[in-house]
Amino acid sequence: MAITLYELAAADGTRFSPYCWRIRWSLRHKGLDFQSVEVRFDDLHKLPGGNKSVPTVEIGDRIVGESWHIAEVLDELYPDRPPLFGCPEVKGPARFVESFFDKVVNAPLLPLFAADACARMTRQDQVYFRRTREHTLKATLEEAHAGRDENVAKFRTAIHPIRLTLRKQPWLSGSAPGYADYIGLASFQWARLLTDFRILTDDDPVHDWVERGLDLFDGFGRNAGPAADRPRQADAGSLSA
Amino acid sequence: MAITLYELAAADGTRFSPYCWRIRWSLRHKGLDFQSVEVRFDDLHKLPGGNKSVPTVEIGDRIVGESWHIAEVLDELYPDRPPLFGCPEVKGPARFVESFFDKVVNAPLLPLFAADACARMTRQDQVYFRRTREHTLKATLEEAHAGRDENVAKFRTAIHPIRLTLRKQPWLSGSAPGYADYIGLASFQWARLLTDFRILTDDDPVHDWVERGLDLFDGFGRNAGPAADRPRQADAGSLSA
Repeated sequence: MAITLYELAAADGTRFSPYCWRIRWSLRHKGLDFQSVEVRFDDLHKLPGGNKSVPTVEIGDRIVGESWHIAEVLDELYPDRPPLFGCPEVKGPARFVESFFDKVVNAPLLPLFAADACARMTRQDQVYFRRTREHTLKATLEEAHAGRDENVAKFRTAIHPIRLTLRKQPWLSGSAPGYADYIGLASFQWARLLTDFRILTDDDPVHDWVERGLDLFDGFGRNAGPAADRPRQADAGSLSA
Repeated sequence: MAITLYELAAADGTRFSPYCWRIRWSLRHKGLDFQSVEVRFDDLHKLPGGNKSVPTVEIGDRIVGESWHIAEVLDELYPDRPPLFGCPEVKGPARFVESFFDKVVNAPLLPLFAADACARMTRQDQVYFRRTREHTLKATLEEAHAGRDENVAKFRTAIHPIRLTLRKQPWLSGSAPGYADYIGLASFQWARLLTDFRILTDDDPVHDWVERGLDLFDGFGRNAGPAADRPRQADAGSLSA
């Protein structure tokens, strides 16, 4: 079945969305190829199936939205390929991992590089990005930028549960990577693709986990960037084209 | 097989240890009866099997320490009873839940009621408790007590990932309670048994989850207190007797 992933992209084509990266890695985990279609922020209402956010995925003639739900559907449709959740009971505590990354990681991560991220968007997306993110952050992107040295220290402390977990096992999912890892790796990939600002120190076990994550599937995460998806996108077309 | 659980107790016999409550609920989850033996802080070095912390469990002639490991052994020894972990892959993200509660819940919860807790210990344990906890808190118990109104507000914010998870499913383990829930419920039971200070507001979904947890197994958690274990303990003897 042909799979199409609708996702946000920077002006240079870089796919950066942390919620899309959860699904990018999930698709690779299951050994599935996909075509990537760029979506501009202003075009989110044009997504197929009435979806209003990315990731949205077309699998054959089925249209699925929302990252968690997509992961569930992938396990359902491809039961013979490596599971994202080992058994239904994994979903319970994996939901907790998702809640942690949504709230304790993604929310305070955004202001650390929101100004850098904005500069990477198309002109059209910059207007949308600045307006919505400044509303969320209750600060201008420039104010957020000015506070990042102080805030990155707080951020590194807040993510200590990741560190504690990695003392006990190599991956958040246990002995091998699974959906809980893709949830988390996606957050750091988001920052990595949009800023040079150092989120983690080199000696942090969380940094080591991210590096191992970037190496998965022949460096699928590490090789991401402007060149990785534009050719595919050219084939698949763009939503706004 | 006879099961004996070694645990800390307040002067009136109340079993309060959050790590022991993880195992108390786990034993009930598996429908297992147990005898409880009181251990004084100063007697932790006298535990069987060379263990130096509670919970320590004797199952037949096997001695097992450390809560996570005990939970694993219970699933191993009693595979036909309800599992604490649904499949081996559950352990990965459940470890993350454990790390979160150890670091983000238990650590900041202690100063909110450490003075109240100390007052509930035997004279002998009070000396040990004050010395070790003031070292951990880098403050006197009285200083910690004075800051609790301010700190409980921060605590309620920090535990937001629990709240987010409970919006999506009734238990941290998913549709039914499991080890991830006992990890977490134990933290709130610890505070509940040792202080009247209000940790959670009544309208907090986390409070609702704790209340449902206290009702499990015929109110096993709700009925805990001075009267619940002393009779059993009298049969089993005390470690310091």
